[in-house]
Amino acid sequence: MPGPIQSLERAAAILRLLAGGERRLGLSDVAAALGLAKGTAHGILRTLQQEGFVEQDPDSGKYQLGAELLRLGQSYLDVHELRARALVWADDLARASNETVYLGVLHQHGVLIVHHVFRPDDTRQVLEVGSMQPLHSTALGKVLLAHDPVARAELDEQEREAFTSRTLTDLLDIDEEAALTRERGWAASVEETWPGVASVAALIKDRRRNPVGAVAVNGPVERLCEAGTVRPELVVQVREAARSISRDLGAPRF
Amino acid sequence: MPGPIQSLERAAAILRLLAGGERRLGLSDVAAALGLAKGTAHGILRTLQQEGFVEQDPDSGKYQLGAELLRLGQSYLDVHELRARALVWADDLARASNETVYLGVLHQHGVLIVHHVFRPDDTRQVLEVGSMQPLHSTALGKVLLAHDPVARAELDEQEREAFTSRTLTDLLDIDEEAALTRERGWAASVEETWPGVASVAALIKDRRRNPVGAVAVNGPVERLCEAGTVRPELVVQVREAARSISRDLGAPRF
Repeated sequence: MPGPIQSLERAAAILRLLAGGERRLGLSDVAAALGLAKGTAHGILRTLQQEGFVEQDPDSGKYQLGAELLRLGQSYLDVHELRARALVWADDLARASNETVYLGVLHQHGVLIVHHVFRPDDTRQVLEVGSMQPLHSTALGKVLLAHDPVARAELDEQEREAFTSRTLTDLLDIDEEAALTRERGWAASVEETWPGVASVAALIKDRRRNPVGAVAVNGPVERLCEAGTVRPELVVQVREAARSISRDLGAPRF
Repeated sequence: MPGPIQSLERAAAILRLLAGGERRLGLSDVAAALGLAKGTAHGILRTLQQEGFVEQDPDSGKYQLGAELLRLGQSYLDVHELRARALVWADDLARASNETVYLGVLHQHGVLIVHHVFRPDDTRQVLEVGSMQPLHSTALGKVLLAHDPVARAELDEQEREAFTSRTLTDLLDIDEEAALTRERGWAASVEETWPGVASVAALIKDRRRNPVGAVAVNGPVERLCEAGTVRPELVVQVREAARSISRDLGAPRF
């Protein structure tokens, strides 16, 4: 079996580079960051530009991500079975809880938000679809982490950022929390990522009982919590939503 | 100067193929559709899969677009200057008109929606960010087409679909409409793409007076039109929004 195609791997690395940090980079920056010869980086960037994956600012000559990625990202969502099955349940959960609902899947070393239902009020809210959340400090992340040995193994080598004083960063603590999550079937995060924000999430399984994602309610501690822990009726709502989505995906009832 | 990198062009073609039509394709389908040897297609697909651009269904072995595209598409939006500058003006326009607002840019042979403000009511609405609209039959498309000679030239070779009986498909009619659009600075589409739906759009320019996008109000004919044409106060609102966004981008006042 032939190995991976080098120019493709390098192109993907350039796109990842442009997706993080600075986001507008000159040819020399790109070449230096990836340890490529300038001519090599230029050839890849020009092809990426021709295909719409990269755009070049006419003034500065700097490169940034291109519009074709947005179009393809939307197509990814269009064909996403979990998301399609979850739409109605996520809406119901947002209405029942009166809070923000997220649907997340494991991607790279984090949670990718594939659906976001706004809190049903008139405030201005920013759509988080396509954004990433950390695995070790969010309710969605904890649920997915607890059910994915590969993601857990990768956590050994990663920096586990302490976003707040409540973030669990010690692997022993994280494993204890994961065991609890597997046992009770849900996870909560109270101010472990964002001060003032709590969330509770439950696992979604497919028809082979494989974990395929998680659904969460997210909101201010003042509304979600009582005496420092998430209100029980909210846990019930989230778990019921997860169960309904799983059933819609063909998961067995028991 | 070296030519484009063939394996990258082929990878982009595979992603485009998976973004349209069937969307879940086996190795043979991909190879046949693009005229590639199976081994060649397989090598590219495996690398795309390794990078998260493609996912393979474990049951059927079929390929579909991958989660990394959603993440990169979101990063594209995060760095999109036009979109960032337009957010507040688009919100204001939606509130003033009480209708849906779209922000679109020219991409490939159509309009790519980069921002969408829901109609400010409680109905369930589907986010259209990342979707494409046709150039010849939508208000956004007409405005962008009227100001882009390349897009106009490409229209010669394209099929111009008659979505409704009102769609302009004859190039003479399209050019006449484009001239009118350039002259008055805005375009309307009344049931030319979707029956019962009208839209009105105006051009956004950057500080060098280059056309960079368009903003539109979209809604039912019953509310947007009077005697078959778009209500004048709506045209004023859309043009003012476009002017404000252009000014925010540094466009001169006159």
